[in-house]
Amino acid sequence: MNIFNHRLLKCCMEKNNRLCLGLDLDNRKLKVNTLSYFEGFVKDIIDTTIDLCPVYKINFAFYERLGKAGYNILSEITEHINGRAITIADAKRGDIGNSSKYYAEAIFDTLNYDSITISPYMGEDSIKPFCEYDKGVFILCLTSNIGSNDFQNKNIDGEKLYLHVAKLACDMNRNNNIGLVVGATKNNQMESIREYSKGLPWLIPGVGFQGGSLEDSIRIGSKYDSLPIINVSRGIIYAGNGSLDDIRFATEEYTKKIRDIL
Amino acid sequence: MNIFNHRLLKCCMEKNNRLCLGLDLDNRKLKVNTLSYFEGFVKDIIDTTIDLCPVYKINFAFYERLGKAGYNILSEITEHINGRAITIADAKRGDIGNSSKYYAEAIFDTLNYDSITISPYMGEDSIKPFCEYDKGVFILCLTSNIGSNDFQNKNIDGEKLYLHVAKLACDMNRNNNIGLVVGATKNNQMESIREYSKGLPWLIPGVGFQGGSLEDSIRIGSKYDSLPIINVSRGIIYAGNGSLDDIRFATEEYTKKIRDIL
Repeated sequence: MNIFNHRLLKCCMEKNNRLCLGLDLDNRKLKVNTLSYFEGFVKDIIDTTIDLCPVYKINFAFYERLGKAGYNILSEITEHINGRAITIADAKRGDIGNSSKYYAEAIFDTLNYDSITISPYMGEDSIKPFCEYDKGVFILCLTSNIGSNDFQNKNIDGEKLYLHVAKLACDMNRNNNIGLVVGATKNNQMESIREYSKGLPWLIPGVGFQGGSLEDSIRIGSKYDSLPIINVSRGIIYAGNGSLDDIRFATEEYTKKIRDIL
Repeated sequence: MNIFNHRLLKCCMEKNNRLCLGLDLDNRKLKVNTLSYFEGFVKDIIDTTIDLCPVYKINFAFYERLGKAGYNILSEITEHINGRAITIADAKRGDIGNSSKYYAEAIFDTLNYDSITISPYMGEDSIKPFCEYDKGVFILCLTSNIGSNDFQNKNIDGEKLYLHVAKLACDMNRNNNIGLVVGATKNNQMESIREYSKGLPWLIPGVGFQGGSLEDSIRIGSKYDSLPIINVSRGIIYAGNGSLDDIRFATEEYTKKIRDIL
């Protein structure tokens, strides 16, 4: 079954969860500040949560800043997960066609991620090369930061820019491998995005530290038989004292909350 | 002199040129397809053009697809140029504040690039961390691809999205280190962007293979004492038979044309 959105759904159903664990780990916040400890700890987090987590999101910024060693860890992560969960390269790429093709190659072939986040500013031809793989493409629609008001939330021909993005994403979803990034802090806007994006899966950041509602995110995200993927990063990886036990416990708590809502 | 836009201008004045050579090199198009040959050839291109070229733009997609080895070359390039020209990391990054901060660290500190291209879709707080360095930030404004019509060219409150981006860029230019990416294929739109972006330098792709006018790009880009940086990639690196002699010759030709217009 190579259709990405089917694989994503299957993995979520099998683990009876919608949780995406964001591995946005800052090595300087760990108790031992060496890169080998960092790499080992990332793998330990994965192993202690992977029976519960169907999806992992890896924020490339946290690894690229570490240079060559960070780049290696990005590659080690997919090797370590090895099909036990879906991986999202949260890399927010996007360029003209030829370059996007090479970014797709970098993320999907070279680093072997299952999916990627991309920025839609450059339009359809910048997105298309990513969609031609049997991998997933999560397009930034409405993000959870304040800056989303600067452009995303502006009206174009009577409709918000983020709705235009949702519409283009639907039109482009010929391989059933496109999803949207929709911030959980924007509850009142989620309803209209769901109308426009029909059955596309959503990757939803903003629950947890940023204060978005888990219940509303799942409720609105699930309409039209759609799949909401709830990303939690700091709320889990820095839970309690940040020990593996605390991380396991927080993952169980989020899983329980999600299952209760489902 | 640590103000980026001053450094950029100084380098252009000293070399009496506005040419940015885009090192968008595909290793599979070279006569020897090994990564060590590729790395050597990139360095040879730099050495054979650096007396003329004030700026080099490195498209990260072409290097990231090569994995670890490509990542190394990204780092080797800045070491090799070593202050002899301004480097632009054409990486089109952009994320929420905390992550943008780490991308800035990755590009400016770890890889030691002088400047970066970024996507504005996520708004001001996604751009700000890059501007807090004494390095340069080229914000995508109006790009040269067809997809620029999908969102950039749409009206928001009676003004094109790209003009809103130009306005925000101006407002944010407190450290005099912001520039815009403005495609040369959009001549009739360049005039209005110049009005809005006042004295910001422009990085102008789209001359050469994409058919933009060199003369108009320099003429409009130079208004209000501004600095147009003309990017040429394929038109130089694949000139003639793609030999170093051909690359040198094409660089001289572009330099001559630019000097004639100036």
